Amino acid sequence: MTARSYDAQSLKTAIAESAGLVDAALDAMLPQPSGRQARVQEAMRYAIQAGGKRLRPFLVLQSARLFGVPDARALCVGAAIEALHTYSLVHDDLPCMDDDDLRRGRPTTHIAFDEMTAVLAGDALLTIAFEFLAGAQTHANAEVRSALVLRLAQASGHVGMIGGQIIDMLADESFGIADVIGLQGKKTGQLFQFSCEAGPILGEASAEDRARLKAYAEEMGVVFQITDDLLDVTSTAEKTGKAVGKDAEMGKQTLVTLLGIEGARAEALRRAQAAVDALGPHAARAPQLAALPFYLLDRDS
Amino acid sequence: MTARSYDAQSLKTAIAESAGLVDAALDAMLPQPSGRQARVQEAMRYAIQAGGKRLRPFLVLQSARLFGVPDARALCVGAAIEALHTYSLVHDDLPCMDDDDLRRGRPTTHIAFDEMTAVLAGDALLTIAFEFLAGAQTHANAEVRSALVLRLAQASGHVGMIGGQIIDMLADESFGIADVIGLQGKKTGQLFQFSCEAGPILGEASAEDRARLKAYAEEMGVVFQITDDLLDVTSTAEKTGKAVGKDAEMGKQTLVTLLGIEGARAEALRRAQAAVDALGPHAARAPQLAALPFYLLDRDS
Repeated sequence: MTARSYDAQSLKTAIAESAGLVDAALDAMLPQPSGRQARVQEAMRYAIQAGGKRLRPFLVLQSARLFGVPDARALCVGAAIEALHTYSLVHDDLPCMDDDDLRRGRPTTHIAFDEMTAVLAGDALLTIAFEFLAGAQTHANAEVRSALVLRLAQASGHVGMIGGQIIDMLADESFGIADVIGLQGKKTGQLFQFSCEAGPILGEASAEDRARLKAYAEEMGVVFQITDDLLDVTSTAEKTGKAVGKDAEMGKQTLVTLLGIEGARAEALRRAQAAVDALGPHAARAPQLAALPFYLLDRDS
Repeated sequence: MTARSYDAQSLKTAIAESAGLVDAALDAMLPQPSGRQARVQEAMRYAIQAGGKRLRPFLVLQSARLFGVPDARALCVGAAIEALHTYSLVHDDLPCMDDDDLRRGRPTTHIAFDEMTAVLAGDALLTIAFEFLAGAQTHANAEVRSALVLRLAQASGHVGMIGGQIIDMLADESFGIADVIGLQGKKTGQLFQFSCEAGPILGEASAEDRARLKAYAEEMGVVFQITDDLLDVTSTAEKTGKAVGKDAEMGKQTLVTLLGIEGARAEALRRAQAAVDALGPHAARAPQLAALPFYLLDRDS
């Protein structure tokens, strides 16, 4: 099996354009630091401004366009998912969790501010994600807004992302392939699923279409995680902007430690194809979504 | 000015009955620990089961009944506000914040479990609060569910409760009466306001009625805070189940340090009367809400 050909430059441009739109939306929607609570608002902005590819909002925008949803509405959801993702990074970096001093080449929030401010800024980013979703500008139909709130709360809660995080913290060397896929499906997969389902939810599409985008996200999420774990083994801190080699150091099982580098790459390629297949009739109308899993296979940061 | 007479026994019974309903709702709505994420679900339940008077859900139930809202719907909101309040206690107790080992006579969550689990259990309680509000069982009208999500996110976010928390952590001896009222209005007042506004929101009542309940909550919140600060000075750890005398020890300004014990009591009494006045025509139909501020004045725990 060889990697499918795709237009890497076109996808890179689309991701960058999307990130620009998302950054502008976040800048407009996040509070300007003011008054005595300015410190926590500054920390919220500091954490968000670490940047990154804004992959989750990209998925929201692309899946929304597939169902005719205006960017202005999708960006509200994109801002929400990025705020929520950022809170998870701020809390994961805390000394009582991963204890990371560096993220994307910058001091983490509890280093740049302090631990108390990082806990509160994370709490505030989590909270504002739901404020963004429930706001009237997200959709005229309150059923849609409520559905988004409910879906994000489930995806990010005790059986979703937070569940995955605690399993990850307690994981040991006995974890096999199914265990690792299960934990990563919660820890990182659920937010990808929310991002891809946001399009059909916003577009009030059929349950069948929603299931297609969810299945795409499930496969794409595994590709993302495998390539992330490959980078931990093969890349440098300079390129990824964070500490590498941590998985091995902590004795953490990943699909790379379990399948080997080549085996993991082959699995990722198989999953990338499965992601495109899951899109069904939409694959041809969503070239960026179809290209993304293969692009992830080639990434070096 | 002397304290208004009220039926203390009837109010005590009503609070206890409400707490029973809320505890049953929380037990049914919170996840049963299962699977590999059981630890975080156990910590969520542990934190909630610390108990207390369940004052915020009591306000939700009472304000909801005033507008003909069935208890079953109000209890969904009551469970949400209690989950959110509990998350704030779990995070406030962390070593990087108040560093408390004891709450309501039991080890705090990070002592009973560990710091990582406490951070995640707090995050999960915050998240599930929005899941509860957005669920179909909260109200048939999605506009109502969205309005509750939006209001709770604002009340508990960077300009609400979290804003109040950071101001409190940074407060110094220069704080005057207006500063203290402002910070406490955010830190504890906003959740009381949400709880009292929940009734008219659920009942789709007029903006005027919503404003009345909000004004009641503002005044009642100050009474609560003054009596809480009085207890810190006058009570014992045995009665309150938490460390006392902490305000003085930390050089923290409160209305008690600023006005003296008698001055603070007089202010609380004035506010209690203002709370009842704010209810306007509803005061007679809501005897428990009308009695509550005076009951708080008499509390010893």
